[in-house]
Amino acid sequence: MNHQDKQHRVVNFSAGPAIIAQEALQEAQDHLVNYKGNGLSVMEMSHRSKEFEDILNTTKETIIKLYAIPDTYDVLFIQGGASLQFAMAPMNLATKDQSIDLIQSGSWTKKAAKEIQKLAKLNIVASSEPDNFLKLPTFSDADFSDDAAYVHMCSNNTIYGTQFKQFPKTASPLVCDMSSDILSRPITVEDFGIIYAGAQKNLGPAGVAVVIIRKDLIQKAPKELPSMLQYRTYSDNNSLYNTPPTFGIYMIGLTTSWLLKQGGLDAMYQANEEKAALLYNALEENPLFDIPVPKADRSSMNVVFTLKNPNEALEKELVSQAKKEGFINLKGHRSIGGFRCSIYNAMPLSGIRAFIEFTHQFSKTAV
Amino acid sequence: MNHQDKQHRVVNFSAGPAIIAQEALQEAQDHLVNYKGNGLSVMEMSHRSKEFEDILNTTKETIIKLYAIPDTYDVLFIQGGASLQFAMAPMNLATKDQSIDLIQSGSWTKKAAKEIQKLAKLNIVASSEPDNFLKLPTFSDADFSDDAAYVHMCSNNTIYGTQFKQFPKTASPLVCDMSSDILSRPITVEDFGIIYAGAQKNLGPAGVAVVIIRKDLIQKAPKELPSMLQYRTYSDNNSLYNTPPTFGIYMIGLTTSWLLKQGGLDAMYQANEEKAALLYNALEENPLFDIPVPKADRSSMNVVFTLKNPNEALEKELVSQAKKEGFINLKGHRSIGGFRCSIYNAMPLSGIRAFIEFTHQFSKTAV
Repeated sequence: MNHQDKQHRVVNFSAGPAIIAQEALQEAQDHLVNYKGNGLSVMEMSHRSKEFEDILNTTKETIIKLYAIPDTYDVLFIQGGASLQFAMAPMNLATKDQSIDLIQSGSWTKKAAKEIQKLAKLNIVASSEPDNFLKLPTFSDADFSDDAAYVHMCSNNTIYGTQFKQFPKTASPLVCDMSSDILSRPITVEDFGIIYAGAQKNLGPAGVAVVIIRKDLIQKAPKELPSMLQYRTYSDNNSLYNTPPTFGIYMIGLTTSWLLKQGGLDAMYQANEEKAALLYNALEENPLFDIPVPKADRSSMNVVFTLKNPNEALEKELVSQAKKEGFINLKGHRSIGGFRCSIYNAMPLSGIRAFIEFTHQFSKTAV
Repeated sequence: MNHQDKQHRVVNFSAGPAIIAQEALQEAQDHLVNYKGNGLSVMEMSHRSKEFEDILNTTKETIIKLYAIPDTYDVLFIQGGASLQFAMAPMNLATKDQSIDLIQSGSWTKKAAKEIQKLAKLNIVASSEPDNFLKLPTFSDADFSDDAAYVHMCSNNTIYGTQFKQFPKTASPLVCDMSSDILSRPITVEDFGIIYAGAQKNLGPAGVAVVIIRKDLIQKAPKELPSMLQYRTYSDNNSLYNTPPTFGIYMIGLTTSWLLKQGGLDAMYQANEEKAALLYNALEENPLFDIPVPKADRSSMNVVFTLKNPNEALEKELVSQAKKEGFINLKGHRSIGGFRCSIYNAMPLSGIRAFIEFTHQFSKTAV
């Protein structure tokens, strides 16, 4: 059977969809045709069945437990990824003549800005675009408007390898796109109005966004908005207004329960910091590489690096040799080139160690 | 291993999410942790990888082949189910002051009507609501407006067990919700402007809607519409503008390729008609049951029946005894009660035969 062939698992540095905890995948495989002896797949279960409602509720409770989410917040499962949230947030929280503050820190906030501009007034509070987004923009709490409908930011910039280590205190609700670092470290949920994340980096497969929303914000949407675009619809129906992406929610359940078994977010944070430090240090010590992001702004999820001396042939050679040795998706995003290791929660320390060993060997032959 | 335990597969009459072809599930299971020796799961693949683009393109081509879709149409994969399409169609095709014709044939068209009313003018051309939707509404091609932005209908009414056997010729584009009978029979795609379907009945798992759309309609959306709500965004980017629900698309690929192996839609139509005729005949001959839908309007996908002499205790007893013998989700929708067997493409003839045998035994002891 193919699935027994565990030796052949690669070290997958994909930025998303990304590596999923092996234990979660293995459990999904074991039960794929016959879930816990019920005689059918999770994919074949009515979303109104007790079995599926248990899966959904347990998944929700696990997320609540991991983040210690207070009961003034709800947790919703919505289709369309963070990209739909870029539009849903302004549709629900702002009117056409209100302004929305935004911290411009990379491609994802630019995409959010594009949608905001269609629906409300955009106010860019700070931007690191002049630095090609290779550092975080700087700002102080005083820079935010008093009357913004909300403040938009992205906690971790997948493409550029930058990550906010702390969050501003804002008078308006803070809406944070955490797609690439959700559940990778403890946060104080009360600091945010909405936290959302596409599942495909730290939570499970693509096709579900998890939306953690303060309950008073749920009721802000105009009722003329299409039902599927109102947060209210999801909250009033426990994300079961229409058929939710049942299998995706099940996978998030397996992943978050694995996370809980690892010791929760304190333990995961420690593990993530250890992995990132190990990799950044090794890259810094390696004469071949350069890390374009300043130390304080570096992401623990996406490690971006380049060749110290630009050399397209050598870059290709490294990516190709890495692939042969089982390190895949190492190529940096086309907008900045170079290399990127996405090392989300599910990336084991052993994967990092093996890759460091590979870079040592490679630099010996290359230098 | 649980998944070897094939004897325990139930006969699943769920209306959706619903039964999936056993062969498709088995293949998904075999490759869940390690897809074709690539060392990772389909769920872990970058949506920009060659492997995943192959999966997406093959899935699309298989749908094109099955329906013989001409190249004046595109096939899109969109999240949010048919419920989001209820709003996307008017957002893309109509202005606030235009009217949309609608054939009111059940709960799903009522939900579509609710969204249309928020976005344009609703014109109900025909309705079978006075008959509690237990028959199809009657109308002629002359009943449609000349200047409607489009005509909305639903080909198969899951809850009431009615199904259109032919489609009107309309001057305006015909937008058809085929969620519960997509790819169950041959159709002439050119008769439609848009065909859409949530995947969870005849195509695969919940979380993807397949949208077959005439190319001229793709460009109608105002560009101020949020990107994720414009058909243009999906068509211009081969459904890869943002991360699509990759695993769901993969499962649709496995299901449609299974369908092709069964002989395509002519063969599937024959098999479906045979299953439905067998079941309807057996129920008609059984003194215990009544079929509320007139013969000409009966669905080949959802077989709705009731007890001839209403008896709540006996109804419960039948559902419970059926469950014990492995026939699950037999209970009718709460809005009409009674029983329902959803017998989509993936339901084998053997499942129908076994259920008929069960009803024989049951009626012997009950009468």
